[in-house]
Amino acid sequence: MTAAVTTPDSLPHGDASPGSTLSGPMLPAFADVLAAAARIAPHAKRTPVLRSRSLDELAGCELHFKCENLQRVGAFKFRGACNAIFALDAATAARGILTQSSGNHGAAVALASRLRGVPATVVVPEGAPAVKLAGIAGYGARIVRCAPTMAAREAAAEALRAESGAHLVHPFDDADVIAGQGTVALELLRSEPALDALLAPVGGGGLLSGCSLAAKTLRPQIEVIGAEPAGAADAIASLREGHCITDMTARTVCDGLRGHLAPRTLALLQRHVDELLAIDDAATVAAMRLLFERLKLVVEPSGAIAFAAVLQHRERFAGRRVGIVLSGGNVDLDALPWQAMA
Amino acid sequence: MTAAVTTPDSLPHGDASPGSTLSGPMLPAFADVLAAAARIAPHAKRTPVLRSRSLDELAGCELHFKCENLQRVGAFKFRGACNAIFALDAATAARGILTQSSGNHGAAVALASRLRGVPATVVVPEGAPAVKLAGIAGYGARIVRCAPTMAAREAAAEALRAESGAHLVHPFDDADVIAGQGTVALELLRSEPALDALLAPVGGGGLLSGCSLAAKTLRPQIEVIGAEPAGAADAIASLREGHCITDMTARTVCDGLRGHLAPRTLALLQRHVDELLAIDDAATVAAMRLLFERLKLVVEPSGAIAFAAVLQHRERFAGRRVGIVLSGGNVDLDALPWQAMA
Repeated sequence: MTAAVTTPDSLPHGDASPGSTLSGPMLPAFADVLAAAARIAPHAKRTPVLRSRSLDELAGCELHFKCENLQRVGAFKFRGACNAIFALDAATAARGILTQSSGNHGAAVALASRLRGVPATVVVPEGAPAVKLAGIAGYGARIVRCAPTMAAREAAAEALRAESGAHLVHPFDDADVIAGQGTVALELLRSEPALDALLAPVGGGGLLSGCSLAAKTLRPQIEVIGAEPAGAADAIASLREGHCITDMTARTVCDGLRGHLAPRTLALLQRHVDELLAIDDAATVAAMRLLFERLKLVVEPSGAIAFAAVLQHRERFAGRRVGIVLSGGNVDLDALPWQAMA
Repeated sequence: MTAAVTTPDSLPHGDASPGSTLSGPMLPAFADVLAAAARIAPHAKRTPVLRSRSLDELAGCELHFKCENLQRVGAFKFRGACNAIFALDAATAARGILTQSSGNHGAAVALASRLRGVPATVVVPEGAPAVKLAGIAGYGARIVRCAPTMAAREAAAEALRAESGAHLVHPFDDADVIAGQGTVALELLRSEPALDALLAPVGGGGLLSGCSLAAKTLRPQIEVIGAEPAGAADAIASLREGHCITDMTARTVCDGLRGHLAPRTLALLQRHVDELLAIDDAATVAAMRLLFERLKLVVEPSGAIAFAAVLQHRERFAGRRVGIVLSGGNVDLDALPWQAMA
């Protein structure tokens, strides 16, 4: 299942410095990705790009794995949160940071706030993995629980914002967050400049939109593809319909990909992404296990879905140089998904 | 539990090119490690050295993890096997390669033989992990099963050698194998030249003896420490007694560390290793889980024991720069040891 993507010219984009625009949400430009790279450099890791002969043979193409599971907090989310929080002026930052997150973004905000020296509060939906909750608490943030819906998350965060005056760092509908996530593709293409294709997971779309912006700027001929859980395919529907679909119920093992697109990420995906592929959870779990076995990396389900997309569409990628973002590695080791499925 | 180590001067050592000596087994010299590095360079990976702020905090020292779980076949064993097999003259190699191994060395011999273009036979004891058997078969070697004792393994290998004329590559009692394993420390110290200590697991002693030779030559003041399962502490007993103890029964989750020292490895450990530490399986399994959680790496129990040794002896390593060899990552993902212990 794929979604054709149109490229409307009516959306605002290309602001070199984030700010309001006349006709829509402010979008980051490539210059913002470069600025983010410089801003987060003292704090974030330059993650390695790993290769595997046996996985190349299995997939029938040349795989370059960008290991964001080895990023701080165990996920790419640290890049965007770090960029957004360090971009704040001192007075704003001092009022504290607030966010809502199913896990990795919450841990990222908690750590980046601690590094900036300001307090953080994270709204976490019931049902988030214990390992991710422990991460948030471990970095010293205050945790507030809410019901497991996007509406409940956003309402709880807004109530806390109104009450405390804290600065809300949205997990993806934020130009600085998107620019920070784009540094994943920036680093990958600087290290592997001749990639033919780049695949990343899509949930709220922050990673994919930032990476597509960076990748298409650095290498216009690259194909940029998103992988979305078949049981949470709101991004595919949103691109088909041309507006954000936010009333779908997510049913997927990929706990990091249950969010919906927001105006900024939709606009960037429309502009820069060639295709989205819907991937069944069984394929994602099989790919995740292969990454454990062959690459010797701990990857969470959301982090393995882009590799699953390559394995499910072998003919499409045959013989090509393919970049794959392994987006995170925070998984409950007492409940690995192939055990639940056995 | 620790063992003091004496440094006898009566053992032969330091042969620049392997060959017989007048008074004992031929030992590799540092020049052999350098030659091995050049010989295996076209085939082996230069594995990364990873760091983790959170594990540094936990351990109270500066940890540098040499990731041999990311080596080909998922273990350092490829280095030694590759060196030994590519060092053979063409006529000897053409008669085929033979070995006995509980797993990783077998896979390493299988792959190195395939790369050299010669047939391989691997004697494997009953009870070896399925994942390791699959690796050996996957590289095209013939598998012959035997009883799970060192005596049965060696007898079966000798019978096959007498019958076929194949060249036997011992898993550790072989100067070329030891020199190959020494390239782990050579790479680590070239990348991190100021290490205060280096820890590696000890089973048959090939890795530790090769690494201790390389490390003490490059940096005489470095402390080299072996970590051995408390339930298979024959190396500690052998160093205490001054000869190889081979009649102990191994009881440990570390399937890669059930072997006994042989004359060559005992001699090198006596000469270059400062101390051996006995580590309980529970500590090893806890360390293994921490490596999954924090470093996002799949490491087998034998591969985690050196990190366990640091965590068990925090005061000893406090504030120091410590190199740790993560020796392998071939583990049965359907039977992770913390599940068995829960």
